[in-house]
Amino acid sequence: MTNPDPTAEFLMLGTCDYPEHVPSDRWAPYARMQAELGLRFVRVAEFAWSRLEPRPGEFDWAWLDDAIAAYAAEGLRVVMCTPTPTPPAWLIRAHPEILAFDEQGRVREFGSRRHYDFASPVFREHSRLVTRAVAERYGQHPAVVGWQTDNEFGCHNTSRSYGGASEAAFPAWLQARYGTLDALNEAWGNVFWSMEYTDWAQVKSPALTVTEPNPSHVLDYHRFASDLIASFQAEQVEILRELAPGRFVTHNFMIFESGFDHYDVARGLDFATWDNYPTGMLEFFAPPGVGEDLKTHYARTGHPDLVAFNHDVYRSLMLGKDGLGRDGAGTPNGFWVMEQQCGQVNWAPYNPLPAEGAVALWTAQAWAHGADVVSYFRWRAATMAQEVMHSGLLRHDETPDRGFAEVAGLDLTQFPVGPVPARVALLHDYESLWIYDQQRHAAGLSYWAQTVTYYMALRSLGVDVQITHPDADLSGFAAVVAPAITLVPADRAARWEAAAQGGVPFVFGPRTAFRTPGGATWSDGQFGPLSEMTGARLLQYDSLRPGVTQGVTGAFGSVDASLWAESYRVTGAQTLATYAGGPLDGQSAVIRHGNATVIGAHSLDLIRAVLREVLGGAGVPLLDLPEGVRVSRRADRTLVQNWHPHAVTWGGLELDPVSSVVLGGDWSPTQGKGVQGE
Amino acid sequence: MTNPDPTAEFLMLGTCDYPEHVPSDRWAPYARMQAELGLRFVRVAEFAWSRLEPRPGEFDWAWLDDAIAAYAAEGLRVVMCTPTPTPPAWLIRAHPEILAFDEQGRVREFGSRRHYDFASPVFREHSRLVTRAVAERYGQHPAVVGWQTDNEFGCHNTSRSYGGASEAAFPAWLQARYGTLDALNEAWGNVFWSMEYTDWAQVKSPALTVTEPNPSHVLDYHRFASDLIASFQAEQVEILRELAPGRFVTHNFMIFESGFDHYDVARGLDFATWDNYPTGMLEFFAPPGVGEDLKTHYARTGHPDLVAFNHDVYRSLMLGKDGLGRDGAGTPNGFWVMEQQCGQVNWAPYNPLPAEGAVALWTAQAWAHGADVVSYFRWRAATMAQEVMHSGLLRHDETPDRGFAEVAGLDLTQFPVGPVPARVALLHDYESLWIYDQQRHAAGLSYWAQTVTYYMALRSLGVDVQITHPDADLSGFAAVVAPAITLVPADRAARWEAAAQGGVPFVFGPRTAFRTPGGATWSDGQFGPLSEMTGARLLQYDSLRPGVTQGVTGAFGSVDASLWAESYRVTGAQTLATYAGGPLDGQSAVIRHGNATVIGAHSLDLIRAVLREVLGGAGVPLLDLPEGVRVSRRADRTLVQNWHPHAVTWGGLELDPVSSVVLGGDWSPTQGKGVQGE
Amino acid sequence: MTNPDPTAEFLMLGTCDYPEHVPSDRWAPYARMQAELGLRFVRVAEFAWSRLEPRPGEFDWAWLDDAIAAYAAEGLRVVMCTPTPTPPAWLIRAHPEILAFDEQGRVREFGSRRHYDFASPVFREHSRLVTRAVAERYGQHPAVVGWQTDNEFGCHNTSRSYGGASEAAFPAWLQARYGTLDALNEAWGNVFWSMEYTDWAQVKSPALTVTEPNPSHVLDYHRFASDLIASFQAEQVEILRELAPGRFVTHNFMIFESGFDHYDVARGLDFATWDNYPTGMLEFFAPPGVGEDLKTHYARTGHPDLVAFNHDVYRSLMLGKDGLGRDGAGTPNGFWVMEQQCGQVNWAPYNPLPAEGAVALWTAQAWAHGADVVSYFRWRAATMAQEVMHSGLLRHDETPDRGFAEVAGLDLTQFPVGPVPARVALLHDYESLWIYDQQRHAAGLSYWAQTVTYYMALRSLGVDVQITHPDADLSGFAAVVAPAITLVPADRAARWEAAAQGGVPFVFGPRTAFRTPGGATWSDGQFGPLSEMTGARLLQYDSLRPGVTQGVTGAFGSVDASLWAESYRVTGAQTLATYAGGPLDGQSAVIRHGNATVIGAHSLDLIRAVLREVLGGAGVPLLDLPEGVRVSRRADRTLVQNWHPHAVTWGGLELDPVSSVVLGGDWSPTQGKGVQGE
Ligand SMILES: [Zn+2]
Ligand SMILES: [Zn+2]
Ligand SMILES: [Zn+2]
Repeated sequence: MTNPDPTAEFLMLGTCDYPEHVPSDRWAPYARMQAELGLRFVRVAEFAWSRLEPRPGEFDWAWLDDAIAAYAAEGLRVVMCTPTPTPPAWLIRAHPEILAFDEQGRVREFGSRRHYDFASPVFREHSRLVTRAVAERYGQHPAVVGWQTDNEFGCHNTSRSYGGASEAAFPAWLQARYGTLDALNEAWGNVFWSMEYTDWAQVKSPALTVTEPNPSHVLDYHRFASDLIASFQAEQVEILRELAPGRFVTHNFMIFESGFDHYDVARGLDFATWDNYPTGMLEFFAPPGVGEDLKTHYARTGHPDLVAFNHDVYRSLMLGKDGLGRDGAGTPNGFWVMEQQCGQVNWAPYNPLPAEGAVALWTAQAWAHGADVVSYFRWRAATMAQEVMHSGLLRHDETPDRGFAEVAGLDLTQFPVGPVPARVALLHDYESLWIYDQQRHAAGLSYWAQTVTYYMALRSLGVDVQITHPDADLSGFAAVVAPAITLVPADRAARWEAAAQGGVPFVFGPRTAFRTPGGATWSDGQFGPLSEMTGARLLQYDSLRPGVTQGVTGAFGSVDASLWAESYRVTGAQTLATYAGGPLDGQSAVIRHGNATVIGAHSLDLIRAVLREVLGGAGVPLLDLPEGVRVSRRADRTLVQNWHPHAVTWGGLELDPVSSVVLGGDWSPTQGKGVQGE
Repeated sequence: MTNPDPTAEFLMLGTCDYPEHVPSDRWAPYARMQAELGLRFVRVAEFAWSRLEPRPGEFDWAWLDDAIAAYAAEGLRVVMCTPTPTPPAWLIRAHPEILAFDEQGRVREFGSRRHYDFASPVFREHSRLVTRAVAERYGQHPAVVGWQTDNEFGCHNTSRSYGGASEAAFPAWLQARYGTLDALNEAWGNVFWSMEYTDWAQVKSPALTVTEPNPSHVLDYHRFASDLIASFQAEQVEILRELAPGRFVTHNFMIFESGFDHYDVARGLDFATWDNYPTGMLEFFAPPGVGEDLKTHYARTGHPDLVAFNHDVYRSLMLGKDGLGRDGAGTPNGFWVMEQQCGQVNWAPYNPLPAEGAVALWTAQAWAHGADVVSYFRWRAATMAQEVMHSGLLRHDETPDRGFAEVAGLDLTQFPVGPVPARVALLHDYESLWIYDQQRHAAGLSYWAQTVTYYMALRSLGVDVQITHPDADLSGFAAVVAPAITLVPADRAARWEAAAQGGVPFVFGPRTAFRTPGGATWSDGQFGPLSEMTGARLLQYDSLRPGVTQGVTGAFGSVDASLWAESYRVTGAQTLATYAGGPLDGQSAVIRHGNATVIGAHSLDLIRAVLREVLGGAGVPLLDLPEGVRVSRRADRTLVQNWHPHAVTWGGLELDPVSSVVLGGDWSPTQGKGVQGE
Repeated sequence: MTNPDPTAEFLMLGTCDYPEHVPSDRWAPYARMQAELGLRFVRVAEFAWSRLEPRPGEFDWAWLDDAIAAYAAEGLRVVMCTPTPTPPAWLIRAHPEILAFDEQGRVREFGSRRHYDFASPVFREHSRLVTRAVAERYGQHPAVVGWQTDNEFGCHNTSRSYGGASEAAFPAWLQARYGTLDALNEAWGNVFWSMEYTDWAQVKSPALTVTEPNPSHVLDYHRFASDLIASFQAEQVEILRELAPGRFVTHNFMIFESGFDHYDVARGLDFATWDNYPTGMLEFFAPPGVGEDLKTHYARTGHPDLVAFNHDVYRSLMLGKDGLGRDGAGTPNGFWVMEQQCGQVNWAPYNPLPAEGAVALWTAQAWAHGADVVSYFRWRAATMAQEVMHSGLLRHDETPDRGFAEVAGLDLTQFPVGPVPARVALLHDYESLWIYDQQRHAAGLSYWAQTVTYYMALRSLGVDVQITHPDADLSGFAAVVAPAITLVPADRAARWEAAAQGGVPFVFGPRTAFRTPGGATWSDGQFGPLSEMTGARLLQYDSLRPGVTQGVTGAFGSVDASLWAESYRVTGAQTLATYAGGPLDGQSAVIRHGNATVIGAHSLDLIRAVLREVLGGAGVPLLDLPEGVRVSRRADRTLVQNWHPHAVTWGGLELDPVSSVVLGGDWSPTQGKGVQGE
């Protein structure tokens, strides 16, 4: 099934509530306030295992029955969770082998959350038991409209364990994948440093090696761990499908989480949700171009493109690796923001209050990028334990906090549901991410940094973006942008080439097709199987320390690249821009072969200029947006937002600080008016 | 008893000497030089266990007998130590379970010092055995006038062990505190992430958790560890009281040490001593306002207020939590500087030579803040092992080092003993420190940083400060300043309110009364039980990243706060200053309700302005001191110091670089003269 | 024997090749290309253990036989390796006790390289077995002209293991050195913190101590570990001497490697080789004077003096500690660069492309500093595993990479072999390094930083430098510079004094003779046994934090010292410069006593001025070279290089960016012409 209320015309709201954290006499009044605020959904019980099963096999449903009844009495619909992110003390102390190990070989102890190894057979068994028990109790409860599995897979770097059950299970996974040790040794290039195995049992996790481990070893350990998460969840989903027919099942994914292949893990769900914390995100995930000045500038809103990127990732996730989606027809299925920041968070070095208007800003943005439901985290700020300094819609003292008023002020009829008209694909692939980040070669870069830089360029041109797996059917897009798909198997290359020959223009970033599926390089060098399509071969790559730049000149003006510059030997392509000065002087920096354009240098200005030219040629409507002003389209509307803490005049609009305007779908900016402000 | 020589009229001097480090033929000449320099005390043997008990149960007293005789022959009085900070190899290798574990789960090995877990039963037994043996030998020795227990509890982060004996002892401590697991789970809020325990044995130390542990868990582990230290020392004190009647017993505490509750550990002592290293302290403990420029400026003296704060902490410590002191009459008991830096140290990233005059400066300051004895560390620079690059009064080659001449030049009659006329209390509480620092929410702040900022404001106003436990009787003070007492039980709030109603003005910093005694927040929010007194409730708190400031305007002018800003909803209080701009715009920043003033914003200028107004109104005499010039009063004298490396003219005085002037107790600066220099 | 081709008149070239990494059909064409490029040597098989002995005791020689045949067919000479740096999985999993432990107590796992403890008896046995097997097969092969032992001892911090076999072997080593525990305790000063041992078995590695371990403990653990490496290699050398008569044996040492005493480890070899990576070296080993600006400036060449220093270290290494060399006549034996960077590396935070001309620049410099062979790493860039992003002479796709063309363009007749006319000795000693770095006292300094600063001063004066062990015969040098020989036993002092009295001028840096051989300080202080020669005693040392400087004025002008300043009490010396201002005001900064000059302050300008005066007086020809321009002499030639990325006019020469000019041995710069550029 898709979203629980297919008849809903407008964005709906919800919250995350923890009845077990407050006295039972608060349940009814809280539900009433929630309903009065216009909330429609309440997510509960993801951390409640110790209350649901206080002792092995002894379940206590009474409190949750009552809490759900209180919500139901106000017409709220409940999203129930499997409580597996927090196995109780009685389980861990009876089976300490459930605990995971970090990359330093230390056991990851009980006392917070996510203290389990996905590979642990005993934990798997208890996960199934508790899932079955909860699903039997609430699977067909009329107020329970859907389910969330566990909570935030991968949070706190928990996707992988480097010892114990995971390490023990790894050889069998390898044997299933490779069949023979010869094949494994060949795939990993283990001859390199005599790392060849002669027995499956010799293989361990790639931790604590004397110097860096084999990147192919690392890549397969990531794949293995990702598969564990997918199969762990699949066990829960299977039980929920049996016992909760007609209810949706989802999972709440994380900001820029990279510990597992989200396409695989999403596969069995009805739709994806994610947890959106814009201010903390800014501190941890800003790419190199967003320095301290911009972080300070956007301290109270976060950066629009970082947030939007995650919306677009999760909106598209259900389409899967083939791009066909659950229905085989490419229907995206929608998504929710399961946890939406509505006040300060507590987990960054600094945790500023959101700006006046930020909660409304974020909510409008979520809608415009395709969210069907935005659910605020959390109802009331916790008065105990790890998150006492995290905000909620209510303060500790139960008075409405700042975000509450902004939610109350929302006019949801401004936010009709409907499709996001994204005709430009941005390719995103977790295997490329894993191998890129294992050998960055330039400390300031990463897969996310490179990918987000292209995304920012697209958004600055007013483009609605569809994040897409590189193996999806790309034939329907106006253009395809592949910022950092470094791992390109032959069949992927063939599909791309076919799409390009079918008329779809492609723009590739550096390192494209540098890697084989095993994580090695092609013996004929980059672009390997993509060489025909690009009409070129890699000549040099250059890693630029801060302070060293590389000039680029040609069809897109003159810019200075930083961090990365690679050059090409053209075999059929034409050179659109060349390097000027330095060791790459005179070599090709931007090339084109048919519908394929490759940008070798890292420069937001250059990327923007190339995209403008390619997308313009492809008939994609473009804008010229200043930093901090963003335009998005959904259904028959256009959302214009100003993320600056000061007013901006743009496109004939007077934009207040931290504000949104919803306009018609055919709106376009008044020509001839410049941008003021900033 | 109090200080060993109640008839002393003036400050006395001493040194720390290590006869076991030098040939025995140096003992007599060293003692002679010490006496000739005017020293009166020599502390010995705190690290000499392997020489006193070279093999289990075999004691060798001869060398120490002779060394003491050499001191006694010159009239020097000996401070003997229990040698427990350095258990010998024979003990550790026979009982490796004595060793502690760090927070990463690693055993903390033999090979330096403080390698023991306070909870180890076998170490406790050996501590008692060696203490009894030494006390039997020297307890009534005529030259031995007092005792130091162990050495610098907590140094090298040794207050807590996160495994082994400590971890094993923790459940019983909890059981004694809480009685039932239900009470424990409730107090810690363990429901939060299903952290509820069903068996005492399930509880471990709060180490290696997947993400941050429950702050209540951490708070109780700190309390537990603090109790261990107190009981460890109490065992030694009991033996010393029995075998060394009439001798004083003390301990040498550390700069800004926070690993245990000093009020509790000091309880059985006669007076406190501490170890004063101003230059290294500057590198490690400067608050945010003291940046690289000031650290460079004061590299050769340290910062006056950091040092003075520690003096004031330890002067007041024996007053205890009730403020009544050992005699029940509030007599502070005096204090010593047991180790006073007299040349470069060896433990900071950079270890500059002290400025010309710094040793005299520090000595005068110690006196003015109440020290009865200043004892220089160490007599001769060590020629072997870890501290060869640490200075002493003598160089390696036995020539007098720079500090020696400054000590020789002291005129002790300038420094009469007598009371410090401190009428302003600054509240300081280790439980508040522990919980504050566990969840700082703004990386640049800490309990010490916030507390010291208030202390600096007070000192810049020329105020003599009494550091006081928040549960002490506060009725006698002219004013009470509570910079960061975040943990406020109901009875504490009631006592404060009574004192305020009795006429004592209070000034509170942000986060006051945010926490319950268990480390949670009040379910009715800050100020919890203090809400009546403050006439307000917390509205927002804001954590300001570097570069983000928050304007404050009102009765104290206009300032920019950094790092922290919290606002209030006044229920009875009046608003003295409001926030201007930003998300707190127009909200209350400084409020007053009767005698209670609350400052919500972090700004030295604002704090200084508020204190000036409140203390002025309370009749506290105030000065307007420039950075680096400080005034202190003791007995019938006033000490004026210039800590700058350049001359300053202030208050009609021409102050040389790094210098002191002792004036009469009724001295006040000439009005109408400005400050020059800087 | 010395270099394999004593008839060679000119520099020869080679490469490092890995036939096991490519299909066998590439062997012949690669060998042909290598020969055509003018290469004469190919090093092979250092990481090939798993291919040579795929299962215990089963050897597979066929592939290597064929590969060698392919090289031989093209006239290439093969350097064979013992494959011990990479013990295979079958060995490690059968004997996990081979693995070493890091300083945090973690086992250092299989999965990369160098995963063994030099003390492991079982690994020693397998090392001998595989060495014997390989030597039996190829020891007398006509194409195999020499041998390399293992690979890069110490790389990845592998010189010492802090547990397991090494820790178990340490007590016996100590017993052999000290005889009695009393002697050990005395030598280490274990009385200091009751660290005295009563049983040899109580001694462990100096790891995980609560605070810093005893530096004497650390020093002896370094000595012990160094002895292990020497004896490990000696076992291999003995086998090779037996089975490979007439072939040379060498080892490829590392950039600034400090984990073992290279003089000891080199002792049994025929000549030394080292691995030269100038760009990565710049990031990791630049001394304090080479800040971010210079690192950026030289990002594509590295810094000339850092590279040259290593050349000079390894050219001189075979002379040994007595300076007499293998033949007893002081013949240096020459050296090779076994691995020469010829494109980007992959192991620094940023890995820039070398500048155009850099490979030729580096090759010419290596020759001028005495290299007989330069062997490029590696032939073809690896297409798999850890080093895929490291360059070779061929790219991944087998096309010639940038360095290839530069190698092809070399005119080797410009580079005749012959002696380097170095008449100035710079003393270098690993024991001084170990103890200096254990207690730096000023975070910005280190043994290498101080030593290299003196070396840079010498090179800026155009001086050819002979790196020399402090115990070598120094009588033949024009001058001796001892930057940081902090450990000076009495016999060393006596030899120096004799040489000085024989007419050799000495220049000493700060901390000279601060330490006893055991790592303590002299009980009569610095300069201990050197006090007579220097005519002075240490007065003070001062550790200067960034921003704090110390003026020096006198015979060498006025300069500001940073990081370190020490002053002296002259007992016979004259004072040439004094400190001005600060705590050292008026004290002696530079002193002279007969032929001994001591510089107490750290300042490149001061060091340069003193050296100019001393060396000028000793008749050493001096130049006045600007930063980045360097002159070296070999045989009858003079090499002038410009390392700047811009043209420079100097000495009448127009120097292109990154270029070399070879001139006659009697060339000297045109007087009266200034330097342009920069
Ligand atoms: Zn702006
Ligand atoms: Zn000043
Ligand atoms: Zn230059």
